[in-house]
Amino acid sequence: MEVSYRDITSAAKRLTGLAVETPFLESSLLNKMIGVRVLLKAEPLQLTGSFKFRGAYNAISVRNNSKKVKGVVAYSSGNHAQGVAAAAAIIGLPATIIMPEDAPRLKIDNTRAYGAKIITYNRFAENREEIGQTLAYKRNLTLIKPYDDPLVIAGQGTVGREIILQSQKLSAQVDSVYVPCGGGGLVAGVGLALAKRSPSTKVFSVEPKNFDDTRLSLLQGERVWNKPKGYSICDSLLAEVPGELTFSINSKILTGGVFVSDKDTRLAMKNIFQYYKLIAEPGGAVAFAALMKNKGRHQGKTVVVVCSGGNVDANLFAEALS
Amino acid sequence: MEVSYRDITSAAKRLTGLAVETPFLESSLLNKMIGVRVLLKAEPLQLTGSFKFRGAYNAISVRNNSKKVKGVVAYSSGNHAQGVAAAAAIIGLPATIIMPEDAPRLKIDNTRAYGAKIITYNRFAENREEIGQTLAYKRNLTLIKPYDDPLVIAGQGTVGREIILQSQKLSAQVDSVYVPCGGGGLVAGVGLALAKRSPSTKVFSVEPKNFDDTRLSLLQGERVWNKPKGYSICDSLLAEVPGELTFSINSKILTGGVFVSDKDTRLAMKNIFQYYKLIAEPGGAVAFAALMKNKGRHQGKTVVVVCSGGNVDANLFAEALS
Repeated sequence: MEVSYRDITSAAKRLTGLAVETPFLESSLLNKMIGVRVLLKAEPLQLTGSFKFRGAYNAISVRNNSKKVKGVVAYSSGNHAQGVAAAAAIIGLPATIIMPEDAPRLKIDNTRAYGAKIITYNRFAENREEIGQTLAYKRNLTLIKPYDDPLVIAGQGTVGREIILQSQKLSAQVDSVYVPCGGGGLVAGVGLALAKRSPSTKVFSVEPKNFDDTRLSLLQGERVWNKPKGYSICDSLLAEVPGELTFSINSKILTGGVFVSDKDTRLAMKNIFQYYKLIAEPGGAVAFAALMKNKGRHQGKTVVVVCSGGNVDANLFAEALS
Repeated sequence: MEVSYRDITSAAKRLTGLAVETPFLESSLLNKMIGVRVLLKAEPLQLTGSFKFRGAYNAISVRNNSKKVKGVVAYSSGNHAQGVAAAAAIIGLPATIIMPEDAPRLKIDNTRAYGAKIITYNRFAENREEIGQTLAYKRNLTLIKPYDDPLVIAGQGTVGREIILQSQKLSAQVDSVYVPCGGGGLVAGVGLALAKRSPSTKVFSVEPKNFDDTRLSLLQGERVWNKPKGYSICDSLLAEVPGELTFSINSKILTGGVFVSDKDTRLAMKNIFQYYKLIAEPGGAVAFAALMKNKGRHQGKTVVVVCSGGNVDANLFAEALS
């Protein structure tokens, strides 16, 4: 495979002292209520409020070390945007980010606050990959893709490495890990780490209903383009087709794919509020939602749910609580 | 003084492996915006969702080791209730908790879920200390007071000890610490630890407007009974007079007292949501609110704000976001 466990370890070294080693959060009340020991990996507490900083920093710093980079460009609905903006700022490079006009306000504002220049586009009429590649070419910028990049996947894989090390400290045998999935970079990285160091642990991708292209592709054995039939509040997970590289990894290592409804996701956000005192954005809450749907399968076992991000506008969060 | 740094170290040893060593959360965006390096001590991530577990467990375990305890009783608006209930359950003792009828639903439900028996009373017509002492006497139960107890103060002091150790790891010189204050147990414990190990650090108590009895008592040099003239959303900080023991400590070690309005507190809850992805209950957010009011004093400095708890009903939290 194009990404090895050694690549993940190298990424972890680069991130030491910069990225937060996010804690497992645990609720004895919830564990008792559902009969499962749940370890919630709290990436909303990561720099920039999501795991995306890990992959972005790893990719930019490696490229900048091997060949002088003039500046970076990225397209993203918001979390990769903030990750790239913050990483570029730390490294001292200018960043240009292409974001959909309808991205959450908070994500646009924060990306700008990290010092990036923002270009907006219409998600329904324009192609962000094209805009990004054209800009990269014309202005001699380095394009940092959101998931289909071995260095990005290795960076996200540090979440999996921490899951392994932190569960060892607790002497916990992890039965399953649920991971949110858009393009599939996070679940590929986490899955790679676990496949290498904890091969008996099952890893599931979790997607919003109507955007379950990875689940369908896993069933089909090849990348399936899933023209969305509806809408989802999970703005960070609205991919229509798995990444090429991510799917080539995920098809080998994942146990399966799960999808959850927006209603499941809203309830998960409320549960994470109540039991863990943590803010989860919709896309960050889907793994917890999937566990709650499948709790019967895991009775008496230990399950890790990755809560991938917490960048959500106040009004949407308030609505999920009501 | 009745509580020494050694008592805090002993409490920390007892709590190892049971209490969470809660992290500092930091937001580079907020730091940049206000010109202060803010380290937010995240006690909502503590077992039971607030710092109260620390003092409760320390007090119950020491008493149970020195003389067989039959059961414990406590009075509390909710966080001490959950702390005592969870600590008693871990030690294997029955707990009876006296709570006001109008305590937040979540706090009552969780206290029951930890296995405690609950007795409610009318905050305006009945005296909780009397009910507690009568019950303790009649049923031979050990009363665990919420703050006026050296073992409870030593337990809360472990927050201060962690602040010292964690800021040393960051090589950060802490200029000031803001600490929420009801009866004064947390700020006394934190203040004692800092007075001993970081004497140049200033420590401030923070209270809600109309309930600033510690602030007034510090100015007066003696305990002042502050008949409340209004209402506050900070249900966990509605004390009308400082504790005897806590004030005897606080009057020696605190730099001063600060109060904040409910409006300041709501905005702080929203800021903590946005910048730290953490749930703060109203009483848990006052220290952050006080820092924001006084940020001009701390330009270029490092300030710790203790976020003491996150047990808030969903509707009140949603309202603070809007």
